[in-house]
Amino acid sequence: MSESPITGLNHVAVLVRDIDASLSYYTDRLGLKVLSDERLDAVGVRLVFLDAGNAKLQVVAPIADGPIADHLRDHGEGLHHICLEVDDIEGAVQELAPGQEVAINRAGDRLSCFLPDRPNSILVELLQYEK
Amino acid sequence: MSESPITGLNHVAVLVRDIDASLSYYTDRLGLKVLSDERLDAVGVRLVFLDAGNAKLQVVAPIADGPIADHLRDHGEGLHHICLEVDDIEGAVQELAPGQEVAINRAGDRLSCFLPDRPNSILVELLQYEK
Repeated sequence: MSESPITGLNHVAVLVRDIDASLSYYTDRLGLKVLSDERLDAVGVRLVFLDAGNAKLQVVAPIADGPIADHLRDHGEGLHHICLEVDDIEGAVQELAPGQEVAINRAGDRLSCFLPDRPNSILVELLQYEK
Repeated sequence: MSESPITGLNHVAVLVRDIDASLSYYTDRLGLKVLSDERLDAVGVRLVFLDAGNAKLQVVAPIADGPIADHLRDHGEGLHHICLEVDDIEGAVQELAPGQEVAINRAGDRLSCFLPDRPNSILVELLQYEK
């Protein structure tokens, strides 16, 4: 994929109402290991990352008012977004969303943003690990 | 993940109305390569698999009446399912859906099924490549 800014699929996100009530399906039934359990107060979410081997599942729930809480109220639980990994998030944003305002967030060693376009109603996140 | 039947995330599926109208976002914008373009007449779908590196994206559209056409009419375009790879699909079905009737389909060297449970409203497919 020499011409693509995309280096891989980082994770698929599942939006849930209550992580504690939902997690056992992924950990006990599917047997996936928890990689991290984080609260991002700036975005109003709790995130649990699960190891699916080549990629991760993210279970996300709102912990405050905001776009994630709004989405849950309007659309219910379900698949929420896919996150594509890139080596250079600023270059990828310029290429994929030229001239558009895109906020890049930082969480630990991750830089990420959501693309403003929603092709086929899907929400696409980009993620770069800081070197 | 020694206790898990899951060996990886095979693909994430995006349901679209018209593959020809939708594909350029994934190929031209994101720069992903097409791996295969298939019609599964038994299921009434056309599937295009795209290479995201460590995993695949599947773009799926109905080509006949059936559950995929029904889902599109009722819910519109968007993320449709995740597909988890297993080494032994029959064993995984017994473990993940004990006592439930699950139809295992064959397409080329792939055996696959959808789990009857929909945790957090997500649809989960299992896939085994035949040795």
